[in-house]
Amino acid sequence: MEKVLVKKLFRESDKFVGKEVKISGWIRTLRASNKFGFVEINDGSFFQNIQVVFDESLENFKEIAKLAISSSVSVEGEFVLTENAKQPFEIHAKKVILEGKSHSDYPLQKKRHTLEYLREIAHLRPRSNTFSAVFRVRSLAAYAVHKFFQEQGFVYTNTPIITGSDAEGAGEMFRITTLDMNNLPKNEEGNIDYKEDFFGKEANLTVSGQLEGEIFALAFRNIYTFGPTFRAENSNTARHASEFWMIEPELAFAELSDYLDNAEAMVKYVIKYVMENAPEEMEFFNKFIDKGLFDRLNNVVNSEFGRVTYTEAVEVLKKCGHKFEYPVEWGIDLQTEHERYLTEKVYGKPVFVTDYPKEIKAFYMRMNEDGKTVAAADLLVPGVGELIGGSQREERLDVLEKRIEDLGLNKEDYWWYLELRKYGETKHSGYGLGFERLIMYLTGMGNIRDVIPFPRTPGNAEF
Amino acid sequence: MEKVLVKKLFRESDKFVGKEVKISGWIRTLRASNKFGFVEINDGSFFQNIQVVFDESLENFKEIAKLAISSSVSVEGEFVLTENAKQPFEIHAKKVILEGKSHSDYPLQKKRHTLEYLREIAHLRPRSNTFSAVFRVRSLAAYAVHKFFQEQGFVYTNTPIITGSDAEGAGEMFRITTLDMNNLPKNEEGNIDYKEDFFGKEANLTVSGQLEGEIFALAFRNIYTFGPTFRAENSNTARHASEFWMIEPELAFAELSDYLDNAEAMVKYVIKYVMENAPEEMEFFNKFIDKGLFDRLNNVVNSEFGRVTYTEAVEVLKKCGHKFEYPVEWGIDLQTEHERYLTEKVYGKPVFVTDYPKEIKAFYMRMNEDGKTVAAADLLVPGVGELIGGSQREERLDVLEKRIEDLGLNKEDYWWYLELRKYGETKHSGYGLGFERLIMYLTGMGNIRDVIPFPRTPGNAEF
Repeated sequence: MEKVLVKKLFRESDKFVGKEVKISGWIRTLRASNKFGFVEINDGSFFQNIQVVFDESLENFKEIAKLAISSSVSVEGEFVLTENAKQPFEIHAKKVILEGKSHSDYPLQKKRHTLEYLREIAHLRPRSNTFSAVFRVRSLAAYAVHKFFQEQGFVYTNTPIITGSDAEGAGEMFRITTLDMNNLPKNEEGNIDYKEDFFGKEANLTVSGQLEGEIFALAFRNIYTFGPTFRAENSNTARHASEFWMIEPELAFAELSDYLDNAEAMVKYVIKYVMENAPEEMEFFNKFIDKGLFDRLNNVVNSEFGRVTYTEAVEVLKKCGHKFEYPVEWGIDLQTEHERYLTEKVYGKPVFVTDYPKEIKAFYMRMNEDGKTVAAADLLVPGVGELIGGSQREERLDVLEKRIEDLGLNKEDYWWYLELRKYGETKHSGYGLGFERLIMYLTGMGNIRDVIPFPRTPGNAEF
Repeated sequence: MEKVLVKKLFRESDKFVGKEVKISGWIRTLRASNKFGFVEINDGSFFQNIQVVFDESLENFKEIAKLAISSSVSVEGEFVLTENAKQPFEIHAKKVILEGKSHSDYPLQKKRHTLEYLREIAHLRPRSNTFSAVFRVRSLAAYAVHKFFQEQGFVYTNTPIITGSDAEGAGEMFRITTLDMNNLPKNEEGNIDYKEDFFGKEANLTVSGQLEGEIFALAFRNIYTFGPTFRAENSNTARHASEFWMIEPELAFAELSDYLDNAEAMVKYVIKYVMENAPEEMEFFNKFIDKGLFDRLNNVVNSEFGRVTYTEAVEVLKKCGHKFEYPVEWGIDLQTEHERYLTEKVYGKPVFVTDYPKEIKAFYMRMNEDGKTVAAADLLVPGVGELIGGSQREERLDVLEKRIEDLGLNKEDYWWYLELRKYGETKHSGYGLGFERLIMYLTGMGNIRDVIPFPRTPGNAEF
């Protein structure tokens, strides 16, 4: 008899009614009397369990009736509809084969556990309902991102993880070395001689693939990265991890508005894909994790995102009458309280804030005509605040060089970035989306540690 | 007038004949007389260039006629069929807008360049034919991998890049630290105090996500990883890089043969997907890079992969009469010369070699009944040798514990790996595929440095 996945039994149940089926999976719950028993089995292929009914006609009835939670079994039996029951169908077992016994001290018993406790058993938490749903959604969302960009002909680009430069300056970096820490080589001046290190110089973990992404956009027109990035910041918040995945699309022959159009379409596409392909998981989140989830996501999918300049947004915030903890003035970096007020109270939908003061944005963002603002834009969404950041890039060689000089950066560090402008400069724009932020938004999970399989944060690199 | 991508002009040319179109791109070649000119433009969306014809009726004719290679332009004009010409169609320009001038010292002139030279200008090489083809194929192959696994319900799993353990022992690791190298904290014994380091202990870059992948397979049944992995080995070969991407699927309730079936289907799927979706690029490789490419790939797609045990393979090699540099005896690790002989001469198609001596394989591979061999399998392919390695995993707690002890490994390091067996052990199998090896195989490119956007090797972390 061929094995069938439980997902298939649920999705194509008509085909199997009255037929003999064979499944394998892990026991989630089991209750048994002297004569018969009910066991719920999850086989990993599907969010929901399937109920199996067995009785003393099994030759190993007594053994099966006593199995601990998380034991693995294979079941052969008849697939039958169950009218008026909670489950629409169940399997009447003819044979239950024990694959592997679990022990009675299995840490994930039926009772509720705190998310904090579950983080300590990250090797078992994917077997719980919450994390089964989270990581299935994570997988589907990742695929939706690829699908969206590939369908439009974007080239997926693997920018380097190990980098010899800190050219973007987006944050604190982790150093990589193979030097013997107990016996570091020194040069004549008594400093560490990084020429002896693996790459012949200092090397770090990347904080962003954007600059290298621009190289590829200026050859392939439209590209995207999707890979891990790192921050060595000693901050213990619910929204920061030391290792996280980022999506960084870059579009050539594209102005700021092209980035906005693309980002809006992408966010809507991913939400729709996940809602359609993980209905049971999303139902679970909406019911048990975040009761406003469906309203929030439907609102995003169905609205046309707002667009407002930073200057206008500051005016609106100053006049709105709301008392902010951090006062609003032209020139400040908007705080989460301001961002959320804008998107939740003022617009009631996602909104792009554009054209920020140059002082609070990165060197590579394109200078506007006014000389005071740059063609940057952040996407703010209800419930979270900033979800995406991006800009049109400065493509004019002379303007970019002047900006690098004004900021006291070292022009030599950017030699290839400048050459991109020297050899056929082209308007181009791009943005960055923290993948975990998107998963938090999609699921309502409140802590980034709970949407990463094995999170890395200060003091924690377990598993 | 709306811009159109050159790919669309090629793929849907019927729609555009006689119509006005607007394109943007970079000049690949330009020749002009006093009265008219021909320019080939590549817009990045497509491997091939489109020819644009312009004449002195353009108000900026003289400027355009003198543009350097790699200048970027936008062109408006009529899309016309060109019978009997090399190109099936061209654009008769009514307007050519200069976007960005390139300089005459542009390093990628029309003449042939060595691959070694192109590596030094990795910021420009994606604009060459070869690398345009390589990185487009890389993108499509990555997507095909995702598509294959997602269509079968496999859960994409992001295993950690930073790891606190060297539990797999697959190779030399890079250390990660935020300690001040010039002022390392010491403990009372005078050793470096890694408690002061970012993660509170020693941390490295991962060499494999397999062990964490098993965690997810034992919750989601079928999973795959696809992410960067690292080796700090000081080897300068054409097949090794310090940073590369790996695909590591893991299947629960699966024996060795399930891995073989899945891997065979996956390899065929990816090859077919790329051949169908990048016909121009593949034609280029078959013509200019590796004249036997199509034969080789078609042979893979159309054959049923062979399966032979290591013991049988050794017998075949000993009796075949061929003189190997490295003599064959039961117990040796097969060398590339042996692997290639088997797959090219003996089988003439891909072949899985299974059941290797336990001494030459990893601790986690499932012990066979004979006590001498393990349920491992490598896929050998003509032209390359080993493409995939994998095994059934040892799921029996007692056998695994004994193996760890016998090898002198530290059981505490594997506490969670052992607990996976304690709480519902399950037969499971998995494999690893080096993504760059696959790209080399798909394209015929001979050096791994030429299939990675910005390769990292000993002494090299540029860009």
